Amino acid sequence: MKNSLGREIPEFIEGYGEVRPFKGAFATVPEGNRAGAPLKTVNPGHDKMLDSIEAVFKKVPITDGMTLAFHHHLRNGDYVVNMVMDVAAKLGLKDLEVSLTGVFPTHEPLIEHMKNGVITGLRTSGIYGPIAKAVTQGVLKKPAVLHTHGGRPAAVAAGRHKVDVAFVAAPTVDTYGNITGRQGPAACGALGYAMTDAEFASVVVAVSDNVIDYPLTKISIPQTKVDYIVKVDCIGDPNGIVSGTTQMTTDPVKIEMAQICADVIKASGYLKDGFSFQTGAGGASLKAADYVSQMMEEGNIKGSFAMGGIHGYMIQMVEKGLFKAAFDVQTFDLESIASYSKNENHIEMSAEFYASPFCKGALVNKLDAVILGATEIDVNFNVNVVSGSTGFIMGGSGGHSDAAAGADLTIIVANLVRSGKYPIVMDEVTTITTPGETIDVVVTDCGIAVNPARKELKDRLVAAGLPVKTIEELKKMADDIVGGPQKRFESDGRVVAVVEYRDGTVIDVVREIKA
Amino acid sequence: MKNSLGREIPEFIEGYGEVRPFKGAFATVPEGNRAGAPLKTVNPGHDKMLDSIEAVFKKVPITDGMTLAFHHHLRNGDYVVNMVMDVAAKLGLKDLEVSLTGVFPTHEPLIEHMKNGVITGLRTSGIYGPIAKAVTQGVLKKPAVLHTHGGRPAAVAAGRHKVDVAFVAAPTVDTYGNITGRQGPAACGALGYAMTDAEFASVVVAVSDNVIDYPLTKISIPQTKVDYIVKVDCIGDPNGIVSGTTQMTTDPVKIEMAQICADVIKASGYLKDGFSFQTGAGGASLKAADYVSQMMEEGNIKGSFAMGGIHGYMIQMVEKGLFKAAFDVQTFDLESIASYSKNENHIEMSAEFYASPFCKGALVNKLDAVILGATEIDVNFNVNVVSGSTGFIMGGSGGHSDAAAGADLTIIVANLVRSGKYPIVMDEVTTITTPGETIDVVVTDCGIAVNPARKELKDRLVAAGLPVKTIEELKKMADDIVGGPQKRFESDGRVVAVVEYRDGTVIDVVREIKA
Repeated sequence: MKNSLGREIPEFIEGYGEVRPFKGAFATVPEGNRAGAPLKTVNPGHDKMLDSIEAVFKKVPITDGMTLAFHHHLRNGDYVVNMVMDVAAKLGLKDLEVSLTGVFPTHEPLIEHMKNGVITGLRTSGIYGPIAKAVTQGVLKKPAVLHTHGGRPAAVAAGRHKVDVAFVAAPTVDTYGNITGRQGPAACGALGYAMTDAEFASVVVAVSDNVIDYPLTKISIPQTKVDYIVKVDCIGDPNGIVSGTTQMTTDPVKIEMAQICADVIKASGYLKDGFSFQTGAGGASLKAADYVSQMMEEGNIKGSFAMGGIHGYMIQMVEKGLFKAAFDVQTFDLESIASYSKNENHIEMSAEFYASPFCKGALVNKLDAVILGATEIDVNFNVNVVSGSTGFIMGGSGGHSDAAAGADLTIIVANLVRSGKYPIVMDEVTTITTPGETIDVVVTDCGIAVNPARKELKDRLVAAGLPVKTIEELKKMADDIVGGPQKRFESDGRVVAVVEYRDGTVIDVVREIKA
Repeated sequence: MKNSLGREIPEFIEGYGEVRPFKGAFATVPEGNRAGAPLKTVNPGHDKMLDSIEAVFKKVPITDGMTLAFHHHLRNGDYVVNMVMDVAAKLGLKDLEVSLTGVFPTHEPLIEHMKNGVITGLRTSGIYGPIAKAVTQGVLKKPAVLHTHGGRPAAVAAGRHKVDVAFVAAPTVDTYGNITGRQGPAACGALGYAMTDAEFASVVVAVSDNVIDYPLTKISIPQTKVDYIVKVDCIGDPNGIVSGTTQMTTDPVKIEMAQICADVIKASGYLKDGFSFQTGAGGASLKAADYVSQMMEEGNIKGSFAMGGIHGYMIQMVEKGLFKAAFDVQTFDLESIASYSKNENHIEMSAEFYASPFCKGALVNKLDAVILGATEIDVNFNVNVVSGSTGFIMGGSGGHSDAAAGADLTIIVANLVRSGKYPIVMDEVTTITTPGETIDVVVTDCGIAVNPARKELKDRLVAAGLPVKTIEELKKMADDIVGGPQKRFESDGRVVAVVEYRDGTVIDVVREIKA
């Protein structure tokens, strides 16, 4: 069948199940009640400490076919996922599903477990590094499921994604299970993605190298959710967990795009008292934040909040009084971690609060402007951030679709041509991640395009003298650079990844590329 | 049938249902999954503001037979319960259940709605004032259900207590539903009891006289749980909400009992580094806290935490460094409210975190010593705090049974004879609230008794030279004062209140006394 964006999707996918096709960004109204974890009781005097990961496997007990969940707050410094899955392999377990909010190069050892059938399923919001290639080449028995950061808590709350055991890498935990990411040798800041898993998983295990006396006083995940605590030598490498500092781009092309993003925000009319803003820590985003910051200072604009993954520059904007608060689902750098421990307007939030479509209003709903990236964008403004133009997975939505759906002004920023040969604007993208109806403006180094559904916005940008073109004009320019229109990569291989939109419908699939 | 404490309880109670008899403080292991509120979605741009309480009734819509929940953080200053129930009456609704965590004299107007059949059910953890008498005299069609503060979130999580609409009196709310009790004209501090209701109720309504710009930065109940916001003129009278200051007793008898409580704690062996403590704000409790504080200072003892309803004296102990933190489910006085806004070791907790038996370990489980009151105590140490000796309801468990079950050392303090004629120690109490197996020591003005199950503790207290007697000796002394043994009040009227133990089993019932 075809979903509403014209993507051909099987009605049933082996290893995934019945497909509910994407019908529109706000078309799904959830039914029924929120799922609940098993009711438990713990009597006074009970000891939650276990000696080892292996002891957890035996105590639960963890059996073939279960789903084990992890968070990615330790990013490329994480040791816990490999540690746990090595135990699973050693114990001879098979057919496990790993649910890991972000997959990094450090998780490469999982490939061996995938080959051996220890791991046959994967749920995540982004795959970075060698596992992306392996998954595209069919290493998993079942298709990977790519959630958005808001879609995962929605799927968990809706009972569609059941977690048997959540292993929470805990930078600090007290002896009764209260967890924080603020302190400890592997401090990572906010634990927003882990909070939802701890809420719904049948069993919750804190894995920590910093078990402190009771009670911890700044609690991100409370003792009431935690079954067991395991002390290990080291949960992660601080160098892989956070950047020391986030750096602004010095690439003149990116600086120019950043300036245009800021000009778009200014011309849009949203940059006024109460302004709220999300942007990433990479590429042109940080520089755009710098320009926005300058405009806010010059215009004496009092914003309401910054949000998202939080980096030091956002914190500086809060400290300057440009925003009342920074809401943080995931902390990117040392400056932000320090802020999180001392600045009461730097607020941790759960993935649900951040972005879930199935709650009574996530923070993204209150967002004025967001700047996002893309690997490809089609003439209907549908965006790909899952795969590259060669069909290989190279990322995932993360919070892309969530922020785009929530924000009043969603800006995609990208060079018009990638690596000198891949046009960003195409007739059809390789994999649709974020629907065009939620994208407002595309900013490239060769001009900008406005979604035709936003005529008034286009008029404002034109009036401001911005280099507005049609998306077709941008596409033509890209084609001319690379020597003619490029056809979308297509494969007729089996489905290796199902791309779920934030509401759990299937917006696209990724198909196998033979090794 | 008889429950394990020998109380005669009907197997089925009209208006309540099947009775699960009390079998022991830790005998119940919950089954199944935690209940979940309905899944909802709220799109960007949606406005949660409604014009009036009446508009909420129509929007939901609220119909006959529903359960409406409220918290008691505004105590005797609360305007919201009466405001909402007056609307229910005006709209001609019938057969509503009011679930209100504590009922105060200010709620007297509800009696009229009970007489008229607007309200036919009541769930609470304590009834103070005229409604207590009216309920005992049978004003409600169905028996009132008396939960403990921990039992209520357990019942809600277990799906036995379903809330249709939670009206949250909100001292401050932002325009998207984030709620705090820290600020606003009716600031009340922690909102621990409201947090659970907001988690599970089908519909959550913030009723506030202080609606502020988005976003609130110190959030107790998040926007993700709140459906509607109603602005009203005034949610409560600050004079009834908190005491200006909490005062220590000057009654020499109470001062002596306070000293003995402190001596018991010292002699018990629990008063050492890591000590944790809960006590109330009234009678001898505050003075006992003062003595404990002095002993901790003198002994250079570093405690771990103070907990419970929090009063200024507890905060002073935290500020002196005697405790690492104060965990606060409910804030009693202005000093504590001020502390809550500025002291990061003054931590708000939900009723579930505080006391629920059906989670993975509530804070009470980690409690070393607690000082509690009683209206009566029997020779098996079973305590009554629900009714007086004349059979009339005059309170409720609140957190009594929860703290008693959790603490290593539970001390009951009470004058041996009340009002010159009611002995505290009896063969049988009027209404059992807290089982004797969870009580360790009784301190009276005529000596102390130790639960025979705690032989080692008794030896320690004797060795410390404390006036240890048997509970039978205390009873005899009381009898002698009042002129012979007093029989327990008994009525063969219909059941007007069901006293649930924290695990949802029935520990006793209160029967009607004809007006």
